[in-house]
Amino acid sequence: MHRDIVIEKYGTAKTLTLRDLAPKPPADDEVAIDVAYSGINFADIQMRLGFYPDAPKRPFVPGYEVSGVVTAVGKDVRDVRPGDDVVAGTYFGGYASHVTIPARQVFKLPPKIDLAAGAALPVAYFTAQLAVGEMARVRPGDKVLIECATGGVGVIATQLARHLGAEVTGLTTSAHKKGFIEDLGAKALTLDELRRDESQKGFDFILNSSGGAHINWQRARLGLTGRIVCIGLSSGVKDGKRNFVRIATAALRTPKISVLKLFDANQGVYALNALHVLRDPVWVERLTRSLANVEAMNLAPHVGKVFPAADVASAHSFLETKQATGKVLLAWK
Amino acid sequence: MHRDIVIEKYGTAKTLTLRDLAPKPPADDEVAIDVAYSGINFADIQMRLGFYPDAPKRPFVPGYEVSGVVTAVGKDVRDVRPGDDVVAGTYFGGYASHVTIPARQVFKLPPKIDLAAGAALPVAYFTAQLAVGEMARVRPGDKVLIECATGGVGVIATQLARHLGAEVTGLTTSAHKKGFIEDLGAKALTLDELRRDESQKGFDFILNSSGGAHINWQRARLGLTGRIVCIGLSSGVKDGKRNFVRIATAALRTPKISVLKLFDANQGVYALNALHVLRDPVWVERLTRSLANVEAMNLAPHVGKVFPAADVASAHSFLETKQATGKVLLAWK
Repeated sequence: MHRDIVIEKYGTAKTLTLRDLAPKPPADDEVAIDVAYSGINFADIQMRLGFYPDAPKRPFVPGYEVSGVVTAVGKDVRDVRPGDDVVAGTYFGGYASHVTIPARQVFKLPPKIDLAAGAALPVAYFTAQLAVGEMARVRPGDKVLIECATGGVGVIATQLARHLGAEVTGLTTSAHKKGFIEDLGAKALTLDELRRDESQKGFDFILNSSGGAHINWQRARLGLTGRIVCIGLSSGVKDGKRNFVRIATAALRTPKISVLKLFDANQGVYALNALHVLRDPVWVERLTRSLANVEAMNLAPHVGKVFPAADVASAHSFLETKQATGKVLLAWK
Repeated sequence: MHRDIVIEKYGTAKTLTLRDLAPKPPADDEVAIDVAYSGINFADIQMRLGFYPDAPKRPFVPGYEVSGVVTAVGKDVRDVRPGDDVVAGTYFGGYASHVTIPARQVFKLPPKIDLAAGAALPVAYFTAQLAVGEMARVRPGDKVLIECATGGVGVIATQLARHLGAEVTGLTTSAHKKGFIEDLGAKALTLDELRRDESQKGFDFILNSSGGAHINWQRARLGLTGRIVCIGLSSGVKDGKRNFVRIATAALRTPKISVLKLFDANQGVYALNALHVLRDPVWVERLTRSLANVEAMNLAPHVGKVFPAADVASAHSFLETKQATGKVLLAWK
């Protein structure tokens, strides 16, 4: 049976709807995939709430990433063939039992990564590589702070920064998740512990995922010549409710930074929208090629919990109430 | 004869005044230097005009850097001794025939650098190393744009970026200086040529020295994940006149950057005040130690013109009317 999950109206997790889907044979440059797992990202929750500027018009199928088995390929496709286990970036449309997409978005499952971990890889790896490797250009000896170190992106960002020789501190809002961060080879602090302890400063790089008012207090913890890379606005969403005041407050509190005042700070500020970068075929190719090194870089996505696709509402609730540690997936089999 | 050059009132180059100076024996941790050359920087012009926020109260002696011969050392000084050729960072006070300063600001002249080139080194090297090496972290294959590539900092920044494996484009406002930039191993463009040619984009790093309205059009020339490092506000000064409207306009046009909008740009913005960084002893030591590698990095300051110290007004005029190519020095012998 072919099915997908659609956002027809904005609201709580219960508004997500399963519907039947007509099979679509691949065009000349396309690949058809029988999906095993679909990855869930925090951005999916934001678009379900209607708070994601880049989302398509309703009704639309969310989802950036899947893993599965190739069932058919177009005549121009060379790199994969029917029967191959693959991972794919879907740029929406990933919450589906079957997808048919351009071959350049599809790549063979990296060695020693299983189908579940594979579905947890594209968004986390591309985002971490862009933020940690390309923007911040982390190098040996760097002092690094990863906010949301227990999330899908945070886990890979922590592993990547460690691989690049940095000394990493991972943040969490939940004290019981500290052990998970320590198992990644990082020092673990709760948000409260960090904010209370003013000696926690001098970071060369901070990965910020909360946005809003958090950017400026975190900037004050950067060392001279340090940089903060902002990758989200998670502080605008709480408990999966459609709270306009909360999202507006987070947006309004996201600072404008005066370059004149930045001269006193001696630091840099980046913002990353990985989706925009992945519209550029040169970057897609560069990042996809580097996926072959995932194992050599000691990157291993951590799958926190897998929900049956029909139970997508529970999966969203689990993520938005901060119960998740690592990646949340939907299973189609 | 011991003399220095003082800023007693703000104004044109003619307001710079030579005065007699009492010799000052070194304290335990100090070094006395018989100065051969004093380096002139664009910031000196800004402080002569009264437009430099970090300048001391008048009357004060400007000047960040000197070269010369050690005449005496305090009893705790180990690294240099009388007779040594040295270079020193002075953090004001450098326009003087003799200086007595803490030993940690003094270092032996690097091999194959003569006293004139030595006086051209500290500000240019520290600024370039902080902007190119520490903030931007330039790496092989980067596409780099250096504004003001013909200035003291620009020459060293260009050489350093080339040494790090970047492909460098140098900018100048004067077409006749293009050959000078090409001799540094860079592609040369005038400001007009760059602005007219919209295919000149996709830079991984832009070194901005003009500030003001130039920051935003230059940002539009960055590639995805690229960064701009701002190191000055030279667009606020023209022809060495004390023009309040011009400096205010440059300051007002220096943008505030909305982090929300930065998500669409996928880039980073840094500002550097090297003087602030050099207040930190850890950074001073780190940067000073790296000076020993100047030769291995193929860095060679270009001395554009040397003026007798008594002719300091001509030296300032030469720099502020954009006649200089490379560094302008004052000679005390």
